[in-house]
Amino acid sequence: MYEKKDKKPGEIKPKLTSLAELGEFGLIDRLTRDVKYYHPETLRGIGDDAAVIDAGAKVLLLSTDLLVEGIHFNLTYMPFKHLGYKAAVVNISDIAAMNGIPRQMTVSLAVSSRFSAEALDELYAGIIMACDKYKVDLVGGDTSSNVKGMMISVSIIGEAKKEEVTYRSGARSGDLLCVTGDLGSAYLGLLILEREKSVFQIDPEMQPELTGFEYQIGRQLRPEARTDIRNLLVGIGIKPTAMIDISDGLASETLHICKQSGVGCKLFEGKIPIDPYTRELAKEFKIIPSVAALSGGEDYELLFTVNQGDYEKIKDIAGITIIGHMTAASEGKYLITPDGISVPLTAQGWDGMKSK
Amino acid sequence: MYEKKDKKPGEIKPKLTSLAELGEFGLIDRLTRDVKYYHPETLRGIGDDAAVIDAGAKVLLLSTDLLVEGIHFNLTYMPFKHLGYKAAVVNISDIAAMNGIPRQMTVSLAVSSRFSAEALDELYAGIIMACDKYKVDLVGGDTSSNVKGMMISVSIIGEAKKEEVTYRSGARSGDLLCVTGDLGSAYLGLLILEREKSVFQIDPEMQPELTGFEYQIGRQLRPEARTDIRNLLVGIGIKPTAMIDISDGLASETLHICKQSGVGCKLFEGKIPIDPYTRELAKEFKIIPSVAALSGGEDYELLFTVNQGDYEKIKDIAGITIIGHMTAASEGKYLITPDGISVPLTAQGWDGMKSK
Repeated sequence: MYEKKDKKPGEIKPKLTSLAELGEFGLIDRLTRDVKYYHPETLRGIGDDAAVIDAGAKVLLLSTDLLVEGIHFNLTYMPFKHLGYKAAVVNISDIAAMNGIPRQMTVSLAVSSRFSAEALDELYAGIIMACDKYKVDLVGGDTSSNVKGMMISVSIIGEAKKEEVTYRSGARSGDLLCVTGDLGSAYLGLLILEREKSVFQIDPEMQPELTGFEYQIGRQLRPEARTDIRNLLVGIGIKPTAMIDISDGLASETLHICKQSGVGCKLFEGKIPIDPYTRELAKEFKIIPSVAALSGGEDYELLFTVNQGDYEKIKDIAGITIIGHMTAASEGKYLITPDGISVPLTAQGWDGMKSK
Repeated sequence: MYEKKDKKPGEIKPKLTSLAELGEFGLIDRLTRDVKYYHPETLRGIGDDAAVIDAGAKVLLLSTDLLVEGIHFNLTYMPFKHLGYKAAVVNISDIAAMNGIPRQMTVSLAVSSRFSAEALDELYAGIIMACDKYKVDLVGGDTSSNVKGMMISVSIIGEAKKEEVTYRSGARSGDLLCVTGDLGSAYLGLLILEREKSVFQIDPEMQPELTGFEYQIGRQLRPEARTDIRNLLVGIGIKPTAMIDISDGLASETLHICKQSGVGCKLFEGKIPIDPYTRELAKEFKIIPSVAALSGGEDYELLFTVNQGDYEKIKDIAGITIIGHMTAASEGKYLITPDGISVPLTAQGWDGMKSK
């Protein structure tokens, strides 16, 4: 700071690297390349849904997520209570994706003076509702003014038995690729809300037309974490070989598992579970339904791989769909269309850095 | 959201409560009044420097802090590396204040596109430098775009032996009130930086006049956490009865201990440790030096109470000053001036919510 300055702090000069060039994952890789671990109990650091910390008989899982107004949520159509609920759930989902149980949470909030205490009461009512449903203790946080807008940062601690923890890196060639619930509806919900947003803005007395879209809007505004499926799998003695939650879209998350496990995949487009009405709606928006599932994101379903030997156990479970299998890395990563054509699987998931 | 709307979301209407009315602590009390704890291992939730989670032989400490551009830091004079260092240190300080050892950290970052990857490299270099000094594993985080400005949210896990954890609530009447290091310099550093800021802004080629103020500026831009004193106390077998770190100012933190311990205090103004040159500088800024210490904040020194029986052990330790003692709650909370006059101790510490 004692040097001559010929630019404002942080301003981009031609020779500097813009964040858009790197994208979120490129930026994280770059910023954390010099990170060292000092403690033997840090079993896994950066690079999975949660960090894994040895605690004797069990492990602790630590994860954090940030929600920024205007980037991750739009208060024009996002009620505060839903926002609070979702902020908690996306973190709980990270713990489920490690095959763990959520335990404690902290919530930090930066808010501009345009917000009232009553609005924040609603936000916290949503957070507390999620904590009650998923039995999470809200144990701390921080509250600050913000120059503009609202930002919510949630950190969560979960726990798991050491042998139960599921990493992104455990998938092997031949494993079945499975997904919970159905995909793409959260994205359609977002499209409907964006379409009706103009109604909110132009005439506040007008009612936006949301009837009939409750499922899709609910999936967008009030997602759930699939702790139920995680518990079901533990109950029937299936340990996924790899697992991740779907926040960025099926394609992006499948590629994360492939990359970190060093395997390829065949993902059958026709097997992707999509709600029938979401399928109809997608066509109305001139979107191929499977693209909404592959690239839409925010479904917070679990994507996981299991050993082929678990096929009989898993094939008839309601709420789980086998959508493909893992292959040797040399065989590549492919989406197989219903016509049997193989196309390379690419991620066009939402990327917070590139989209701005 | 399906109701008729006659206002923008979150906008303050006359009957609603503004955040400024409540202040940060009032807001936190209000938002967390309905929080329930479900898990027996949650030994302490909201209300101390960190939450305390039972982990068998030891406990885990969990804390989180938020730094917002324009509220907590000003990039006109805050170099990115210092900012990263400080963001880590203020969290490490929270763990020290619980009498614990920092272990793992997550860092979440929201940044607008005005920042370059090189600026964030510097920020992370500062974070990693602090992690190296204090031996903390950086195990995760989240990265997002921001509409405007920069926001850093850090969460930290520490550990302690169960019997070593020090709460704000353990002070008893008769205990000695002690503080580490010296106070008020960080605030003077801020005043100098604010004074010279115009130089940065008016003529970027001009050098601001910072020579001679290195100590104060260093205290503001690059504070340290007093893990050294925490370790020293453990080494000589002193367990503070209560402890807190000084982020908001000596007065505010002393009152936190009084409130949570249910005691009063006598704090001797003349005993407050203040650097001699900071004392001079304060006068130059027409500030009573003790006021800088009592209300300035950001010193990140430790304020703690010890049993009177520990007096002999503690009285000659360099870097620790006894500044008063705790009394029965009925005796009130007083500052005793060098003339022997008792004035009620009041907090005018920095309050993120009220200052905007």
